[in-house]
Amino acid sequence: MTDEPTIDKIREASRRISPYIHRTPVLTCHALNKITEAEIFFKCENFQKAGVFKIRGATNAVLNLCSEEASRGVATHSSGNHGAALALAARWIGTKAYVVMPENAPKIKKDAVVGYGAEIVFCEPTLRSRETTLAEVVDRTGAFFIHPYDNYKVIAGQGTAALELCEDINALDIVMTPVGGGGLLSGTAIAVSAISPDTLVVAAEPERADDAYRSFYARKLIPVENPDTIADGLRTSLGSLTFPIIRDHVSDIVTVSEEAIIAAMRYIWERMKIVVEPSAAVPLGAVLTNRGKFLGKRIGIILSGGNVDLDSLPWVR
Amino acid sequence: MTDEPTIDKIREASRRISPYIHRTPVLTCHALNKITEAEIFFKCENFQKAGVFKIRGATNAVLNLCSEEASRGVATHSSGNHGAALALAARWIGTKAYVVMPENAPKIKKDAVVGYGAEIVFCEPTLRSRETTLAEVVDRTGAFFIHPYDNYKVIAGQGTAALELCEDINALDIVMTPVGGGGLLSGTAIAVSAISPDTLVVAAEPERADDAYRSFYARKLIPVENPDTIADGLRTSLGSLTFPIIRDHVSDIVTVSEEAIIAAMRYIWERMKIVVEPSAAVPLGAVLTNRGKFLGKRIGIILSGGNVDLDSLPWVR
Repeated sequence: MTDEPTIDKIREASRRISPYIHRTPVLTCHALNKITEAEIFFKCENFQKAGVFKIRGATNAVLNLCSEEASRGVATHSSGNHGAALALAARWIGTKAYVVMPENAPKIKKDAVVGYGAEIVFCEPTLRSRETTLAEVVDRTGAFFIHPYDNYKVIAGQGTAALELCEDINALDIVMTPVGGGGLLSGTAIAVSAISPDTLVVAAEPERADDAYRSFYARKLIPVENPDTIADGLRTSLGSLTFPIIRDHVSDIVTVSEEAIIAAMRYIWERMKIVVEPSAAVPLGAVLTNRGKFLGKRIGIILSGGNVDLDSLPWVR
Repeated sequence: MTDEPTIDKIREASRRISPYIHRTPVLTCHALNKITEAEIFFKCENFQKAGVFKIRGATNAVLNLCSEEASRGVATHSSGNHGAALALAARWIGTKAYVVMPENAPKIKKDAVVGYGAEIVFCEPTLRSRETTLAEVVDRTGAFFIHPYDNYKVIAGQGTAALELCEDINALDIVMTPVGGGGLLSGTAIAVSAISPDTLVVAAEPERADDAYRSFYARKLIPVENPDTIADGLRTSLGSLTFPIIRDHVSDIVTVSEEAIIAAMRYIWERMKIVVEPSAAVPLGAVLTNRGKFLGKRIGIILSGGNVDLDSLPWVR
C-alpha cells in the first residue's frame, strides 16, 4: 500500500514525465460560457502527445521500471488510447511494447500502435481471449504488464493533468473529468483534494455505461459488461484500485445521455474549433444538461483526448 | 492614393483593433514537420473572433468610419465569412449592419449573420441581383458599403495577422496565405515585405479557381466566373485594389488540386486536433504537393478560418 498515489507522488510523476509530454494549454470559450452561464476552463489533453492524457500514466509507469524490468519490454491489452500511449512511451525509453488487440479492431487503432513501433498480438474479440493472450505474451517474453488504469503509477501519472490545471487556474469551484476505468478521475481526485480542498471533483459518465455512478452510490464495485456508448474510451468499468480512491475523494458522478454527449462534442468542435473525441465531451454534456448544478461556477474540465475517426462522425448520417 | 496600405497603416490598424480581436496563437506540429520535411508555424485565425481572420479587416474598416458615417450603418453583399464578421464588428460599435444574401444561402450562414445582430436583405442568387440589391440598401439607408476585400482599410486590417506572426516567429523563409479576393494576401504581402524583406510571400490557390495565379503571371487582372471549388472562401476573384499589391509584393502563387486541399484539411484535423475550413488548408496542400520547393524551409502559414459545416465533411460520403 505504500505505493498508493499521493500528491507527492503526482508531483514526482510530473517532474519525471515533463521532458516527454506537452504541458497542454487551458482554453476558454466566450460562447460556451454564455450558453452554460458558467466559467469553464478546458485543459486540452486532446493536444497531448498521442492525442490523449493516457501518455501521462503510461510514461510514468515505464519510467518507474527498473532497467532489468524495462529491458524485457511492456505489454497491455488495450486496443484503445492506452495501447498507443504505451507503445509511444516504450519507444521513448527504447524498449519493446506488446499490445494485445482483437483482429477486428479498427485499422486506425492498429496503425497508431504499429506507427509507434509496438508489436500487435492478435486475439479473439472476447475478454477471455484478451486475458489469456496477454498472459501468454507475458509468459513468453517476460514483458511487464501495465494495466490501462488499475495501476498506481498510471493513476499518479494521470493526476498530473489536474496538477497543471490547478497551477494555471486558481479558485476553481469544480474540476470535472469523464470516467471509464477511473485512472484519470482517481488521479485528478487525489491531486485536486490535496491542492485545493475547497474544489469539488465531479465525474461525468455516459448513462449507458454507468458502472461508476452505480458503484459510487452503492459504495461497492458494480461492473457493467459490454456497455454500448459512443464514448469509446469510457466502456470499461472501475477497477479495484481506482474505485476506493473515487469513493473517498469524489463529490459526485453525473450521468449523460448519448444525445447530450454528441451535442457537447459538436459544440466544442463548432465553437472552440478543436477536435475532441466523444469521451472528452461528456463533462460538458453534464454541464449542459444539469445547468442548475453548475450555474455561475468556475469549472475546470479535462478534455481527455482528440482521437476520433473522422470517417464516421456521430452527427453525420 | 494616400489611403493605400503601408506597414504604418497596418501597425495603426493593429493598435486600433486589438481591444476587440484575439491575438491568435502560433502552433507547430511535430508530425506535420516530419511529413513535409519543413518547419511550419501555423497562425491560428480559426480561433479568431467569428472564426476567421475577416474580423480584422471588418473591424478596422468600421472603426475608421467617422461618427456620422457610422450612425447610418454598414452594408455588404458577402454571404460568407465577411458578412458575419462585418455584422459582429458593427455590433461592437453599436451600429446597424445590412448583409445582402441570396435566399438559398446555407442556414448556418444566415444564422451567424442574424446571431450577430445584422439584418439580412435577401436577393436572387445572381451577381446582378446582389449588386442591385446592395445599391438599393445603400440608397435607402445611407449605410456605408464595406467591400469584402477591395477596400484599403480592410486590406490593412487583414495585414495585422502577418504582423503578429512576424513578431512572434523570426527568420521565416516563407509566409503563405490562401488567396481568393486577395485581401489577406495583399495585407500580408505589405506587412511581410516591410518587416522581413528576405521572407518570401507565397500564395496558394485552388486549381479550380486560379484567377490569381493566371492574373499574377499574365500581369493583368483575369477574373474567373463561378469557379467550383470546395474552398468556399476562395471562389472570388482578385479586385482592382488587391491585384496591384499582389503583383508587386508576392513571390509566387501555387495552385492546389481539390484532392490535395481535402488531404491537407484532414491532416490538420487529425494531427493538430483543430478545426479549419477548406480554404485554410490550401497552403498546406501546396506544401504537400510541391515538397521540393519547401524542403527544409521555415514556413509561416496563416490558417485563415475554421467555419465549416460539420454536417457535410468532404471525406465523408
